[in-house]
Amino acid sequence: MVASGRESAEEGVRAGMAGGILGIEVVVFDVLGTLVDEPGGLRAGIREAVPAADDAFVDELLALWQGHVEREQRRVVRGRRAYADSGIIDAEAARLVADRAGVGDPAAVDRLAGAGRRLPPWSDSAAGLDRLTRRLVVLGLSNASHTAVPRIAAYAGLRWHGALSGETVRAYKPAPEVYRLAVDTAGCPPDRVLMVAAHAWDLRGARAGGMRTAYVRRPGGDPPTGSDDFDGRFEALDELADALRL
Amino acid sequence: MVASGRESAEEGVRAGMAGGILGIEVVVFDVLGTLVDEPGGLRAGIREAVPAADDAFVDELLALWQGHVEREQRRVVRGRRAYADSGIIDAEAARLVADRAGVGDPAAVDRLAGAGRRLPPWSDSAAGLDRLTRRLVVLGLSNASHTAVPRIAAYAGLRWHGALSGETVRAYKPAPEVYRLAVDTAGCPPDRVLMVAAHAWDLRGARAGGMRTAYVRRPGGDPPTGSDDFDGRFEALDELADALRL
Repeated sequence: MVASGRESAEEGVRAGMAGGILGIEVVVFDVLGTLVDEPGGLRAGIREAVPAADDAFVDELLALWQGHVEREQRRVVRGRRAYADSGIIDAEAARLVADRAGVGDPAAVDRLAGAGRRLPPWSDSAAGLDRLTRRLVVLGLSNASHTAVPRIAAYAGLRWHGALSGETVRAYKPAPEVYRLAVDTAGCPPDRVLMVAAHAWDLRGARAGGMRTAYVRRPGGDPPTGSDDFDGRFEALDELADALRL
Repeated sequence: MVASGRESAEEGVRAGMAGGILGIEVVVFDVLGTLVDEPGGLRAGIREAVPAADDAFVDELLALWQGHVEREQRRVVRGRRAYADSGIIDAEAARLVADRAGVGDPAAVDRLAGAGRRLPPWSDSAAGLDRLTRRLVVLGLSNASHTAVPRIAAYAGLRWHGALSGETVRAYKPAPEVYRLAVDTAGCPPDRVLMVAAHAWDLRGARAGGMRTAYVRRPGGDPPTGSDDFDGRFEALDELADALRL
């Protein structure tokens, strides 16, 4: 466990005990960015659709995609757009990227639109889930659509006891109803449910819903600030499992 | 693959090819009875609550429990009772059993009510799912509540890419909306989705929804009749995986 920079193992163990990472029944994982490398997978999809693009152009196209998705999800959360699932928003993003890059082949645009389901896992994701699922109930909770989540899991080799999508409540994290869905499915008090994410904004939403929170550092994540008081901060899923005494 | 009684392996392979068990993208498993031994788990819960009961009395109490659950689910399916989830109906069954057996301790009745979540897996269930999840999208689909399904999976050591409950559509199999939920989540044409169950009544419902169907023989299941034309009949999950060419 790493609270801020590098603490000693002894401090880490003490923090785990004091921070109250024990008493957990159900572990809920964010998926995109936390268990799979979303930018990496999207970048690969863009490279395939636009083979002539150099790194700078791929970066530009990726930013175009991600900007569209973030903006549209925010509009849904704020009630400025009716709920549209991740498949619809990804297809819009793929169209924007294709138009910018001059890709006209409909099959190539279709394939690009599916890039959001072909995301590589982080190196410790499958083994970490395997270890956790042996002792606790483990759920995925994603802004990806209810069709996309199991397919993302299958592609990345991830398995758990259940997977939830914000689509079920027609909302996107950090909308409170998405965390309520997770706690309702967990079927126990929210302080026995641990949300694990690489994004502080996601953990703040879970905390507001009464869940316990664990940050896992990942490339491209959203690290906690000084005012965040999460129940644990980890460098990898093995550290999280250690802190849960599995 | 076993079509009726014992066929030769060669006939099995031919049947698998001709029966069209190929081209499957998503495998949907019934859970209770198909992956876990529901009567066995309930029997253990009853024995624990009523230690003095002999085998005949345990059988009687089990029949009381199962009769209540079947009757109430049927009433929900026929619109004669508002949807009540499996936790509510199991608690009613536990109360009936406790009353019949003279068990008054509320903690013992509560524990008995949870027996429906403590069900042992069949010996090939975990390994079979492990093999299938490596190559296809695998979902659980149960009449157990959305809280119960992941807990049943965790208790039995079963993992998949997603788990669905009839509770999401407030219905019980074989109501058509439960199979529609599975096909919608699968996100592909229903003839690329394979329902696997130990109950012919469940497979008939899936088939009516356009899904492909595979019967797996389990103790206490509901075997096909001569008029059932399922896409495959198997003695174990390894046979199913072989027929899917995994």
